[in-house]
Amino acid sequence: QSIEELKAQLEALSKRIEELEKQQKKTPKVKKADPAFSLGSDDGLFEFNIRGRVLADAGWSSDSDGSMDKDTTELRAARIGVEGKAWKDVKYKFEADFAGNDVEVKDAYMQYKTSMGSWTFGQFKTPNSLEEQESSLNSNFIERAAFTDAFALARMIGIGYGNGGDNWTFNAGVYRGSNDGSVDNEGQVFAARATYGDTFDNGNWMLGASVRFRDVGGDGDLLRYRQRAYLHSADRLLATSRIAEKDTFYGLEGAVQYGSLNLTAEWAGLTAQNGGAGGRDAFFYGGYVEAGWFITGETKPLNLAKGVWNRPKIKAPVHEGGMGGWQIAARFDRIDLTGDGVYGGEQDTLTLGVNWYLNRHTRFLANYSYVNIDKAFDVAANGADGENSADTLGLRFQVDW
Amino acid sequence: QSIEELKAQLEALSKRIEELEKQQKKTPKVKKADPAFSLGSDDGLFEFNIRGRVLADAGWSSDSDGSMDKDTTELRAARIGVEGKAWKDVKYKFEADFAGNDVEVKDAYMQYKTSMGSWTFGQFKTPNSLEEQESSLNSNFIERAAFTDAFALARMIGIGYGNGGDNWTFNAGVYRGSNDGSVDNEGQVFAARATYGDTFDNGNWMLGASVRFRDVGGDGDLLRYRQRAYLHSADRLLATSRIAEKDTFYGLEGAVQYGSLNLTAEWAGLTAQNGGAGGRDAFFYGGYVEAGWFITGETKPLNLAKGVWNRPKIKAPVHEGGMGGWQIAARFDRIDLTGDGVYGGEQDTLTLGVNWYLNRHTRFLANYSYVNIDKAFDVAANGADGENSADTLGLRFQVDW
Amino acid sequence: QSIEELKAQLEALSKRIEELEKQQKKTPKVKKADPAFSLGSDDGLFEFNIRGRVLADAGWSSDSDGSMDKDTTELRAARIGVEGKAWKDVKYKFEADFAGNDVEVKDAYMQYKTSMGSWTFGQFKTPNSLEEQESSLNSNFIERAAFTDAFALARMIGIGYGNGGDNWTFNAGVYRGSNDGSVDNEGQVFAARATYGDTFDNGNWMLGASVRFRDVGGDGDLLRYRQRAYLHSADRLLATSRIAEKDTFYGLEGAVQYGSLNLTAEWAGLTAQNGGAGGRDAFFYGGYVEAGWFITGETKPLNLAKGVWNRPKIKAPVHEGGMGGWQIAARFDRIDLTGDGVYGGEQDTLTLGVNWYLNRHTRFLANYSYVNIDKAFDVAANGADGENSADTLGLRFQVDW
Repeated sequence: QSIEELKAQLEALSKRIEELEKQQKKTPKVKKADPAFSLGSDDGLFEFNIRGRVLADAGWSSDSDGSMDKDTTELRAARIGVEGKAWKDVKYKFEADFAGNDVEVKDAYMQYKTSMGSWTFGQFKTPNSLEEQESSLNSNFIERAAFTDAFALARMIGIGYGNGGDNWTFNAGVYRGSNDGSVDNEGQVFAARATYGDTFDNGNWMLGASVRFRDVGGDGDLLRYRQRAYLHSADRLLATSRIAEKDTFYGLEGAVQYGSLNLTAEWAGLTAQNGGAGGRDAFFYGGYVEAGWFITGETKPLNLAKGVWNRPKIKAPVHEGGMGGWQIAARFDRIDLTGDGVYGGEQDTLTLGVNWYLNRHTRFLANYSYVNIDKAFDVAANGADGENSADTLGLRFQVDW
Repeated sequence: QSIEELKAQLEALSKRIEELEKQQKKTPKVKKADPAFSLGSDDGLFEFNIRGRVLADAGWSSDSDGSMDKDTTELRAARIGVEGKAWKDVKYKFEADFAGNDVEVKDAYMQYKTSMGSWTFGQFKTPNSLEEQESSLNSNFIERAAFTDAFALARMIGIGYGNGGDNWTFNAGVYRGSNDGSVDNEGQVFAARATYGDTFDNGNWMLGASVRFRDVGGDGDLLRYRQRAYLHSADRLLATSRIAEKDTFYGLEGAVQYGSLNLTAEWAGLTAQNGGAGGRDAFFYGGYVEAGWFITGETKPLNLAKGVWNRPKIKAPVHEGGMGGWQIAARFDRIDLTGDGVYGGEQDTLTLGVNWYLNRHTRFLANYSYVNIDKAFDVAANGADGENSADTLGLRFQVDW
Repeated sequence: QSIEELKAQLEALSKRIEELEKQQKKTPKVKKADPAFSLGSDDGLFEFNIRGRVLADAGWSSDSDGSMDKDTTELRAARIGVEGKAWKDVKYKFEADFAGNDVEVKDAYMQYKTSMGSWTFGQFKTPNSLEEQESSLNSNFIERAAFTDAFALARMIGIGYGNGGDNWTFNAGVYRGSNDGSVDNEGQVFAARATYGDTFDNGNWMLGASVRFRDVGGDGDLLRYRQRAYLHSADRLLATSRIAEKDTFYGLEGAVQYGSLNLTAEWAGLTAQNGGAGGRDAFFYGGYVEAGWFITGETKPLNLAKGVWNRPKIKAPVHEGGMGGWQIAARFDRIDLTGDGVYGGEQDTLTLGVNWYLNRHTRFLANYSYVNIDKAFDVAANGADGENSADTLGLRFQVDW
């Protein structure tokens, strides 16, 4: 009797479990909560998550020539986007920025991974410069090094190929134009980057190199080179006129992560074809050396398989009652836009920074920078001597999801 | 035998349950379906949901002076956004509006809750006026009272502090500029608001007060004050020129919820420093008295802990075969932008409204308003006598998620 | 003893199952992974999913008159949006496009389904033309037939009514303006469409007809009619001036799906009231015949209940090691914008296409088209003889979610 009852009960339970198993198959799984949920299907065919960020900045900048006196705020980034897998090997990403109440589509691509490497179609970054490849969410400082903007490293519409292993990467692509308007004939861009690195006790190192060839075509505006006095809200005290139809960029990179310390150095040269006096090529260059150190012991990971710095994990985030992560950083940054009769100017920038991470996805940044400018005769704001100097103070709060 | 069999079966079931429990931990939980899903993790560290709204309006407005004859439609709001928790105490919100095929970033902030109150960083509303704090999704009428726009209550970039209890709130913040462009020197804004209320039989009451000090700084445009003839598609028949570098706003609020009835009254004064004739301060004021009543018995909740009106729950939504929620509302609204030699005009608006809620997140609104204008000599459309009157009819359908 | 033990174990399992069942109710269910997850609640009251697309195009076009020489790329679409149910019968949809770094709100509506048909409020397509109703995600070609743009079929703000059965549809609506700016008096638009079809062995057929009456009202710009040389990046070599305050559109459609073959033909006429010489009505017309065929055996479904072509299912997608879906297509397309003294031009376009579907939501398209233009005296680019011809080559990669 009792056994019969138990059998019946067992059967009933079994049915309820069956129903639960059936329902379970219909529920999405959380692949990551980072911090928005990345949902995935059990079979690995699908994945989807919402991305986005808000970067709110306050900036003060003034120069010794008295031409710049800024005291302003802005949303430096205000983005929403999506990322997902459309059947396993096909990944897509789309993100738009609404800073300044304007639209700027950022990544907008589809990527097809094969055993022989991945193919990317759409709008994405040309593979140049370690710092340009790094997300601004992870950077040691509020703004990137001067040469990345001055040499116009950016997202373009194109086709890219990528391959790599545990400690190397290779990326190359052909590009034309971007989502930001278009001209009748867009010219062409070719770019490629390779990195190689290895692991040692308590750290990693990585070396890299990249090139980019640009030809604006017959109809496009000629190329120019310019940069702000560190902060985005500061003026451009360094600039050439539109001087070249073609240019060649080549860059070298080195990075070391040792415990809580991260060190990066880059050098980049650019030849603006026929951009100089008498139709000679004009040669410009830039580069920086920077160091970041987590007082609170975190590691900023150097991802050798992707060829970029990644986001640090915070040891004692505030929601656990910790004091978050505290990082200090320093950078010396030079850009030289003079040469062969072009006087765009030389700019040396020393930047000191303190960053406070509440958690992995929320942080405050404070940067002071001293900017010294020389030979910038092409920019009226610097006066007749072509010299100037500026002090800037930048504050940022950052959240992403 | 039989027992051995049962034991084996039991063990098998136990394993299946274990697997289900493991899977269960990886699934997100629905915290709210409101009506987009708000997903959360079991540990309370994460939460995420997509927000948005579409408000489609049709408006007719004409004036007795024959200068305005509008008959037009618009998307009054077309928004998408996200809201979430990045580790428990840190909340973020981001929303962008695309009405008129333009971009306007709305809320874009991170909020850190501590036991001593919450800190907000980014772009958000200054804490002024009960109606300005209320979402337009919940309002009794299509447009807010005249003084909220006339006195430029808005979202700004800043840092805010908030605290409160079950029946009181206190919020204060410092602000500078917004995502909508920027000037070299943005000046400063300080604002604060406090509310206190209590519960009585079948209802609640709340009193509040707020202030705002603005200083546009040396570089910004001078401040001006203006308002439309009720509808967003109507003209601005009330306006001052740009007259002041600094102004002070102070407002008083009172609200009562009694059963299906909601009553609100606000008064706001503004002193435009040196804005009047001979450099005297110009004083303006505005205010309104409004009542809303649900014929179908719903309650519009007065949230004493947040200091705002909340969204009503609909008793018999259409998807359950009900007739939805029916509300009628009336408002008398005055704004006076004259004083000390400034003739921006006085505007009295009587608005009658009928609202039909299909459900908690979908409704239709119909508003008729009669607008009477006097002493508006500064607006040419009102003619030499500075007098005018307008009739407006507004229809809206609204959905949010 | 043993039985007692088993009983206790059974009870323990039962409790764990109960807990699982409770949790299960709080988890969202995947209604579709298409490829972003559409999440729904068990009770059918709620559903929600994120939508979007990226279409990246490269285009080459040149004409025999030497006025056009294009060689350019663009994001033809870059969209994000949401779709959901707010309590069962009430559906909403919102999507915004950021192509060209501009904003264009697309669908933005709420739809209430009743047993007597559905009511739609907001911005959505007027019900005209089979191809206009079809999503560009599913189309055989990169661009739609010439008359759809030339006759300005588009989304407008309005109220629509729809009804239908398994093999018929009826839609009608009244409209005024759109989210793209507004004028004081927007005039009116009325549009309606009906389709009927049936199934035969291995296929379906459908016939349809639609009308649209437009009156821009007194204040709006007069109506004009124009079209590009097939590609979006090509110039408009066909155009009238702004000639009419009112026009009437009427269209006929026929479609057949037979196995892997899809055939469509449409004809549309438009009378531009008083648009011709001497105030006579000007009559224009356009139409096309097209065929698409899946080499790899897929079917492009003709949805008789919705009156549109749907998206094909791919038999051997690349993630399963297949070669994807391969489709070829051809279209002859005519538009005639001449008549009664108006010389907007006649344009005949022959387009050949090859489409490769990696999977249901990712594809590449290649189109070649030959465009012949005659009597286009109103467009200076065509020279004094009003004749011209153009060759275009278009490539697209497309992903949606």
